[in-house]
Amino acid sequence: MKRTVTFTLAAAASVALLPTLGFAQDAEPAVGVNASTDTVYILNSLLFLVGGFLVFWMAAGFAMLEGGLVRSKNVTMQMTKNIALFSLAAIFYYLLGYNLMYPGDGWSIDGVLGAFGTAGLEPVGVTAADADAYDYASTGSDFFFQLMFCATTASIVSGTLAERIKLWPFLIFTIALTAVIYPVQASWKWGGGFLDAMGFLDFAGSTVVHSVGGWAALVGALILGPRIGKYKDGRTIPMPGSNLTLATLGTFILWLGWFGFNGGSQLAMGTVGDVADISRIFANTNTAAAGGAIAALILTQILYKKPDLTMILNGALAGLVSITAEPLTPSLGAATLIGAIGGIIVVFAVPFLDKLKIDDVVGAIPVHLFCGIWGTIAVVLTNSDASLATQLYSIVVVGLFTVIASGIVWFILKVAMGIRVSEEDEITGLDMAEMGMEAYPEFSKG
Amino acid sequence: MKRTVTFTLAAAASVALLPTLGFAQDAEPAVGVNASTDTVYILNSLLFLVGGFLVFWMAAGFAMLEGGLVRSKNVTMQMTKNIALFSLAAIFYYLLGYNLMYPGDGWSIDGVLGAFGTAGLEPVGVTAADADAYDYASTGSDFFFQLMFCATTASIVSGTLAERIKLWPFLIFTIALTAVIYPVQASWKWGGGFLDAMGFLDFAGSTVVHSVGGWAALVGALILGPRIGKYKDGRTIPMPGSNLTLATLGTFILWLGWFGFNGGSQLAMGTVGDVADISRIFANTNTAAAGGAIAALILTQILYKKPDLTMILNGALAGLVSITAEPLTPSLGAATLIGAIGGIIVVFAVPFLDKLKIDDVVGAIPVHLFCGIWGTIAVVLTNSDASLATQLYSIVVVGLFTVIASGIVWFILKVAMGIRVSEEDEITGLDMAEMGMEAYPEFSKG
Amino acid sequence: MKRTVTFTLAAAASVALLPTLGFAQDAEPAVGVNASTDTVYILNSLLFLVGGFLVFWMAAGFAMLEGGLVRSKNVTMQMTKNIALFSLAAIFYYLLGYNLMYPGDGWSIDGVLGAFGTAGLEPVGVTAADADAYDYASTGSDFFFQLMFCATTASIVSGTLAERIKLWPFLIFTIALTAVIYPVQASWKWGGGFLDAMGFLDFAGSTVVHSVGGWAALVGALILGPRIGKYKDGRTIPMPGSNLTLATLGTFILWLGWFGFNGGSQLAMGTVGDVADISRIFANTNTAAAGGAIAALILTQILYKKPDLTMILNGALAGLVSITAEPLTPSLGAATLIGAIGGIIVVFAVPFLDKLKIDDVVGAIPVHLFCGIWGTIAVVLTNSDASLATQLYSIVVVGLFTVIASGIVWFILKVAMGIRVSEEDEITGLDMAEMGMEAYPEFSKG
Repeated sequence: MKRTVTFTLAAAASVALLPTLGFAQDAEPAVGVNASTDTVYILNSLLFLVGGFLVFWMAAGFAMLEGGLVRSKNVTMQMTKNIALFSLAAIFYYLLGYNLMYPGDGWSIDGVLGAFGTAGLEPVGVTAADADAYDYASTGSDFFFQLMFCATTASIVSGTLAERIKLWPFLIFTIALTAVIYPVQASWKWGGGFLDAMGFLDFAGSTVVHSVGGWAALVGALILGPRIGKYKDGRTIPMPGSNLTLATLGTFILWLGWFGFNGGSQLAMGTVGDVADISRIFANTNTAAAGGAIAALILTQILYKKPDLTMILNGALAGLVSITAEPLTPSLGAATLIGAIGGIIVVFAVPFLDKLKIDDVVGAIPVHLFCGIWGTIAVVLTNSDASLATQLYSIVVVGLFTVIASGIVWFILKVAMGIRVSEEDEITGLDMAEMGMEAYPEFSKG
Repeated sequence: MKRTVTFTLAAAASVALLPTLGFAQDAEPAVGVNASTDTVYILNSLLFLVGGFLVFWMAAGFAMLEGGLVRSKNVTMQMTKNIALFSLAAIFYYLLGYNLMYPGDGWSIDGVLGAFGTAGLEPVGVTAADADAYDYASTGSDFFFQLMFCATTASIVSGTLAERIKLWPFLIFTIALTAVIYPVQASWKWGGGFLDAMGFLDFAGSTVVHSVGGWAALVGALILGPRIGKYKDGRTIPMPGSNLTLATLGTFILWLGWFGFNGGSQLAMGTVGDVADISRIFANTNTAAAGGAIAALILTQILYKKPDLTMILNGALAGLVSITAEPLTPSLGAATLIGAIGGIIVVFAVPFLDKLKIDDVVGAIPVHLFCGIWGTIAVVLTNSDASLATQLYSIVVVGLFTVIASGIVWFILKVAMGIRVSEEDEITGLDMAEMGMEAYPEFSKG
Repeated sequence: MKRTVTFTLAAAASVALLPTLGFAQDAEPAVGVNASTDTVYILNSLLFLVGGFLVFWMAAGFAMLEGGLVRSKNVTMQMTKNIALFSLAAIFYYLLGYNLMYPGDGWSIDGVLGAFGTAGLEPVGVTAADADAYDYASTGSDFFFQLMFCATTASIVSGTLAERIKLWPFLIFTIALTAVIYPVQASWKWGGGFLDAMGFLDFAGSTVVHSVGGWAALVGALILGPRIGKYKDGRTIPMPGSNLTLATLGTFILWLGWFGFNGGSQLAMGTVGDVADISRIFANTNTAAAGGAIAALILTQILYKKPDLTMILNGALAGLVSITAEPLTPSLGAATLIGAIGGIIVVFAVPFLDKLKIDDVVGAIPVHLFCGIWGTIAVVLTNSDASLATQLYSIVVVGLFTVIASGIVWFILKVAMGIRVSEEDEITGLDMAEMGMEAYPEFSKG
């Protein structure tokens, strides 16, 4: 840190003035000494805890973003979905998902049976000797961190399907997604499965998290159909979000949380190299978001003569998703460009989806699916050990699996209980129709 | 962290390939070496700082939750109360509370006199040798962390009494609460006092923080009486909150802050055992909140045929309060259930209080008092060293003290200056009547 | 941490009971052993990363504060400006600013040329041996942290000029500010330049960050002129903010972020002394904000008979700016007073600026400029090595430079493209006129 030039010189001088026979406490640290094993374990766990609470915060970010982009008659429902989906993810990832994702010693009978047990943490008050038997960081911190990734996947879905899906089928889908669909495909890469063995690179989950959420949302949107009145006589009718400060707040929250999402995915902080890498990741993640926002700002100014705030917000998120597959190796300049291309993708993809009459209320499919794919491909531009074929193959395999698995679940739900509210309820708004409670009861609607 | 399986093997391999006579910097950390005393001191202090800023954030969470649950005509006042109460807590806990809470060498004359001085931090630039003379973590970080717990207690009160209490009596009560009432009873457990000596267990303050805030709120609500028009002809008239996205945001903020509240209460992060315990606490805290939210979701669906968002939000908070007395020892499953029972308590307690015509605007008494009691009792289910008698005795002693002390203060304030606004001002709304400023001046009221 | 009295005794006892020939892992840490060099490097970098993400969060705080204090017809524009200015700061501080701020080996030809390159981070996966060649913390973490200070400076400007400045000239000014103006003057102190050599003391930037933002805002406000209708027949017409919960949220966010702003400016966390100092800084920063808020609360009650929420919020921010030049050395009591004086300054300065017909929409000039100056002067009250002459000289030099440099940029922009929207657009509101998008389209205006 250059700001300390004077400071550190002064400190060095004061050390030099100390009698060499002083207290041990006053000695300079021995040069070139590694952190002790305990310290490494603590710092690794701390990374998961801090990274984990930052990614937890993203759940609030999704809630605010979506609450700001839906119409006011559906806001209470959107809040309910967001807090309920996170809670269900927390419970079902514990009951099933975590073990499915990390099947242990391969897919032996023992492993599979074990996978159907609940997640277990280390006992209270382990000693260092016990801890060695576990892993290089505490299982509890790992579980906490991984859970948040699973919950993020579920958060992505809720925005696309807003304003017309029934609460309970949505929540049942969330259970299937967080207990089974997400963990199974995540195990292929992060559980040491076949995609990982092939050399698939996806640092923090452009494919494993974001595209999976995006695919599940896309299938849901296709089965559910567009909102009433959204597409009329070949035109797309704008249905502007009710609260753009809330949407902006949500974007800032997601941006903040992403430092934990990408930085924590370094998975270790106990060495000089790890913390320097995390620092690169923080800087790259930030600049990719900036690149996405500015690209969307300039492009909407050019295309529409007016900058579009919701595009700029989604541009920032697009930049974040795009850098997620590889936030470490790019230079700051490359990260800015990768993010900027993400922002451009979003500006073109939103009207493209509308042309296909795929109604994505908040733009989650462009942001998380399209930019998730772009980010995964972009890895080959910055990593010499990445194979384009492997990246594409992995994108397709994960996509096919998610489309088929979530398609089956959506279809069963549609047949068994119906997934869409009645036309009348949709026009009234889900808040009064399904919840009997308005989000802003006192503000009269214009 | 299982996600690194490949990564860590690769890293190990690269270490193995290094010439053994390489730089010291490249050596593996010596196995089984504890962190140095300096590192332990730093990590312990860091826990307080990070935990402290997360609990600080809860002050914003209370403000948003309460701002969302009051009617729009009282929102400016509610913001004012929240920022002022936190500020007063910061000043008066420093002037008096911190020393009262930690009377040092028992209640000797010196100790008591010392308790009436202001809190002092260690001098600037202590060396390790000096620091040994202090404690195992920096006094400044400890003060910062403890202050936030005191302020939380005060935040609990403001929600219950909203929409009818005058600003200045409320603030004077806050001073009494944070300078004297909270610190005195907290010293009985956390200052090493008689409840601690008896074996009372309250890890992060279900009783010491939450029930104390709840009792003070209950006494205030009884003395203040319900809002005009709340109870009419034996019926409870709903007075819906004006902004449910704000209330949802507040709940997410509180949930996030609670990781610091409970995790920081491990009070140490310098050993493998401590950080593994903090990890358990994070995971349990999260799952208890999830359990509370889902229990309230299901229960309101069953009871009222419609899920109730404000109950779900309070359910999550109920889960958090319930796990606060013992977030470490339960398994994830037990923590979920403890939280879920908290959520159930809230769903039944809110109409129960209404039946008693106790008007609690935001539901703080069910959440903080009832679930604080439940959480304190639940410790006996998970901790073999807990005694039900001691837990109950401590709940009652702390409750009696808080009820009597805060009753006296409320009574003096009522006699001396009046605590309730005029009927006319209450109907107009406190914002225009007491502040002359609306929170949403441009949005016309429906 | 006193709360552990019993706990630590118990822990000590359990250690005592262990056989002395136990595993190495169970040994007590060796007393008086410093952290290893690796650990120091990691902890220093971690401070920058955590401090950095907290200061990032301040960008959201400014957005919410300003979004709450402008009228609803200008809110979308204010959101756009805030997210765009942060993004531009991120890109241009990387392209130019960072190197300009730290010109390396003085202003040699090499240094100056080097300054026009882009910022470079250390390579991926440095080892400790490599890292020694860099610095005492990772360059990436330093860049990330410093960037956030540069962005904060730009955030300050946007509030003052709200509701009447065109988007693109404002953004071009932001580029000039973050790429050149801020970094050049910051190098004088934090890059080891001539003000630093003179002994100028500005710990976290009351002058370097806050006054610079304030001066740039002041010059912009003078060139831009007041909003239409703000001053009429010698009277100031109130134009109340549209959303005071948002403004309150913004203030809480800024307060939280400031722990990173001031605490991170200790620049090191690898020794007992550093972490104890950071703890002092956290406690002092908090209490200064509290002092500012309470001073504004009491003073507005006395002056206007009604407490003024926007003054209280600005009072808290005033306290934070005031303590920023020296958050370490004051006692808690002194910090409270320094903050309280800041709060008093704001209450008097807001109407004073109105008397001069300088229209500052959110009060950023009183908060950041006036209290930035006050805080810089206050250093002489708490630091025996501070010279009043040097502090004043530095305030003036930085002020003159910023006024001249930003005046030139504003003037060029005014001549080249105009900086103010048309009268009609201003009355319509920037959201519909420049963006075609309302922030709250459904809420009818009263």
